[in-house]
Amino acid sequence: MTDQTAPTTAAGEPATARGEQTRRLILDTAMRLFRERGYAQTTMRAIAQEAGVAVGNAYYYFGSKDHLIQEFYALSQLEHRAAARPVLDRETDFATRLAGVLHAGVDVLTPSHDFAASFFKTAAEPTSPLSPFSAESSRPRHAAIGLFAEVLDGSTAKVDPELRPQLPELLWLAYMGVVLYWVHDRSPGQTRTRQLIDGAVPLIDRLVALSRLRVLRPVTRQVLDLVRTLRH
Amino acid sequence: MTDQTAPTTAAGEPATARGEQTRRLILDTAMRLFRERGYAQTTMRAIAQEAGVAVGNAYYYFGSKDHLIQEFYALSQLEHRAAARPVLDRETDFATRLAGVLHAGVDVLTPSHDFAASFFKTAAEPTSPLSPFSAESSRPRHAAIGLFAEVLDGSTAKVDPELRPQLPELLWLAYMGVVLYWVHDRSPGQTRTRQLIDGAVPLIDRLVALSRLRVLRPVTRQVLDLVRTLRH
Repeated sequence: MTDQTAPTTAAGEPATARGEQTRRLILDTAMRLFRERGYAQTTMRAIAQEAGVAVGNAYYYFGSKDHLIQEFYALSQLEHRAAARPVLDRETDFATRLAGVLHAGVDVLTPSHDFAASFFKTAAEPTSPLSPFSAESSRPRHAAIGLFAEVLDGSTAKVDPELRPQLPELLWLAYMGVVLYWVHDRSPGQTRTRQLIDGAVPLIDRLVALSRLRVLRPVTRQVLDLVRTLRH
Repeated sequence: MTDQTAPTTAAGEPATARGEQTRRLILDTAMRLFRERGYAQTTMRAIAQEAGVAVGNAYYYFGSKDHLIQEFYALSQLEHRAAARPVLDRETDFATRLAGVLHAGVDVLTPSHDFAASFFKTAAEPTSPLSPFSAESSRPRHAAIGLFAEVLDGSTAKVDPELRPQLPELLWLAYMGVVLYWVHDRSPGQTRTRQLIDGAVPLIDRLVALSRLRVLRPVTRQVLDLVRTLRH
């Protein structure tokens, strides 16, 4: 399948080496300006100027600022996956794998913390294409849910069969909760977010194990129904 | 106790009839301007001007815009309590009482939905005195937790004795989750928030009932430890 070996961007479009270099330059410049000046205050014109490319050239690679953020999401997802690789290759205990993936996610996001706090105002709006729940974000979202499927599949955890197919999405929702907490976390080095992960993982691990108890089946069903109701 | 019968403002300061009228005029004017122009864009000077009082007079009643919001919180809390009164006086079933109080909270907030979406950017910052978790918000927060204590105390629910004293605060945290969802809810009439409440209440009700099972005691303890760790 030549399709799989052809170079592509993080967002999935085919790329040449030269083109990819320009794309990456524009993206890195944009992220720097977003951090320094704020998302709303940064124009495509300013990004092109600062990157030393023509405005038309910048628009050729990224149709809008939103596309730049989508690329940022896609790259963050790849970095998250790479950072989680060692623990996923080494461990089979569900809680250890889950903690590793959650901490890896925060590791990758940490350099963007200042930016994330200001950017959150835009992305939190659910009708925004930049929301992690939007149709436009479906590619990185599905990739992220796939990472949590890997957490589960490579583990020795025994799970209620009704819960199992939905669990990766629930774990991803929990991760979104961690990210929301992290965005607003003003503790030095966001240590409270790390405490949240370390406290929540044993709890999730226990609930997953208990999901096989007959008495908890109705709870599982109610949780799954609720998520289905609220999903778009 | 004369202290209890003296007229006070929602925030607890003593008030005269005339003074209370002026306070209320300033507050209503401020809320209208916040809705129309946004919180950040509205100055105390503009509020005073629009209310037809001297700027110094406005500052006499409210030391800053933040104080206006605190008064708004306090008033909303009183309205929430009043709106929940019928169901609390009539029902003894825990789930019915909880659903009633959650829906009453959303009822009271509904006229402020447009304002809430823009205002959220300010209040979501946990170091902001306007955050519901801040020291400055402790009075309305404790009043709100007290309302959830009433949900529990007037009900026939049987609860794990270790969970019981902490449950009102956990229910309030769940309510904060509902409010967060509501702020971002763009469905017509925020019907999705109503679905969230109707889906979450039977789930919470079941978990509270199950809390007395021996096998779930460690889960309760983990949840309580986690909340304690993350609380300031």
